[in-house]
Amino acid sequence: MTEAEILERLKRRMRSSRHSRVVMGIGDDCAIYRGLGAAEDLLLTTDLLIEGVHFLRATHRPADIGHKALARGLSDIAAMGGKPSFCLLSLALPKPISAKWIDSFYSGLLKLAAAHGVLLAGGDLSRAEQIACDIVCAGTVPRAQALLRSGARPGDSIYVSGALGGSALGLATPRGAAQRRHRRPEPRVELGQYLRKTLHANAAMDLSDGLSIDLARMCRASETSAAIDRVPRFPGATMEQALHGGEDYELLFTMRPEARVPAVFRGIPLTRIGTMLKGPETRVLLDGKPLPVLGHDHFRR
Amino acid sequence: MTEAEILERLKRRMRSSRHSRVVMGIGDDCAIYRGLGAAEDLLLTTDLLIEGVHFLRATHRPADIGHKALARGLSDIAAMGGKPSFCLLSLALPKPISAKWIDSFYSGLLKLAAAHGVLLAGGDLSRAEQIACDIVCAGTVPRAQALLRSGARPGDSIYVSGALGGSALGLATPRGAAQRRHRRPEPRVELGQYLRKTLHANAAMDLSDGLSIDLARMCRASETSAAIDRVPRFPGATMEQALHGGEDYELLFTMRPEARVPAVFRGIPLTRIGTMLKGPETRVLLDGKPLPVLGHDHFRR
Repeated sequence: MTEAEILERLKRRMRSSRHSRVVMGIGDDCAIYRGLGAAEDLLLTTDLLIEGVHFLRATHRPADIGHKALARGLSDIAAMGGKPSFCLLSLALPKPISAKWIDSFYSGLLKLAAAHGVLLAGGDLSRAEQIACDIVCAGTVPRAQALLRSGARPGDSIYVSGALGGSALGLATPRGAAQRRHRRPEPRVELGQYLRKTLHANAAMDLSDGLSIDLARMCRASETSAAIDRVPRFPGATMEQALHGGEDYELLFTMRPEARVPAVFRGIPLTRIGTMLKGPETRVLLDGKPLPVLGHDHFRR
Repeated sequence: MTEAEILERLKRRMRSSRHSRVVMGIGDDCAIYRGLGAAEDLLLTTDLLIEGVHFLRATHRPADIGHKALARGLSDIAAMGGKPSFCLLSLALPKPISAKWIDSFYSGLLKLAAAHGVLLAGGDLSRAEQIACDIVCAGTVPRAQALLRSGARPGDSIYVSGALGGSALGLATPRGAAQRRHRRPEPRVELGQYLRKTLHANAAMDLSDGLSIDLARMCRASETSAAIDRVPRFPGATMEQALHGGEDYELLFTMRPEARVPAVFRGIPLTRIGTMLKGPETRVLLDGKPLPVLGHDHFRR
């Protein structure tokens, strides 16, 4: 089974997902909760980080692991144009683990939290054989203003922030900028809010599993196809890494065709990579040829 | 290290926990979020359920595991007098796991969700070597009305719902009522709302780790001590199991001394077990003698 199939099995078992307060459920970067009388919508997302899957204790420093655990959640908030607010941390630890490891993990996480004004508001602790961490991130957007995956329209220009493939390269490289990108991804929180408030993007999501799979997900949600003809590559990354590598945590977004998008936002390049086409077949074309969907899937055989 | 020590290390590293919207952070059953202009507070809690720690695949049916994963979160919402609203599910699964196992897990979880009007609104999926599940539960209470652990006052009567030790007995017993209690705990959701709305309890929490440790936690939060002289035992449970056994998911609550509490609420006995005393030493006495704190702690040596 693939992740998509496991999710499909779940959706088939769920009743109709109408709910008086949850205005977006499964299917986007965050769930959206609209409190009675509230001026703002609350975005909520949860992200696992698991030893042996997302990191190795031998090669990943605990402070980097703490940083990445929170960065993944903040990136989901950024993808919807949200302002991060607070987080909850569920942490399962093997019994022989040093106080130093725990302190360093907390340091990495709390430093990133402080940089974004995020309060650690609760969580859970358990034993486990592998380190397992689940971060719940919450953020706010003005009512009904969240950027969605499903907002892309045929004719929209498709953009990505930054350069892709850096994290995949860093996973294979012991040092340098790519290695730092892999260890300490920077969630594009300010950019996400800029896309919502100033550029009025039609759709956005974060690139966590690779451009090929994530763009296909956006197409599916928006009932569009996509034709791309360029991909900004991280220095040294292969085209393969840029197209299919995960964990870049850049933003993928679409704009109405006449919109003007600056080339750079606060030092981060914004690159037009292609155009959304009429769906509903959700094909992704690179230079006119079908792009295989090879991004990260935990359960692909 | 104990869980309390790991939490203490975290608290020491956190800046002051003042936050404009999180009115309750670490230290109670749920975090409390107060949205701008919102009529209701949002309760949020996260609970891990881990193979080899909380259950064994060989002896626990997947539907029971799904049930218990959500029941733990609903019990935290109940403890604060909340109305459950929605949940998020983070699920890490070993690669060779059957579609049947997954379907059955979902069934157990979604059946309990439907019974309480809870929507599964999102989550995350990952691989892992052990099954690990983290449930985020959200619920609502009218603004500033949540029941807290810290609300107990000297002189308050202390109560528990139901009978204790059933889950500990069930863990050791292959069948019968105690086994069902262990496999399918029923979160006291209606009771929690009744304690808040009708009985106006001063303090409440759920009994997840055992009366001795949980009552000590309430005393610490409220800066009280407690003297108890009776404990309602689950049929067949030992005094040891009733005092220190975890996972009963009954409610512990305190009432001003003059309050009238019915003996039974919807079939669930409500038993006065003792009295809160002046703190701040947070001692717990049983029949006048100090009660050792032997409830469940994942990290105790």
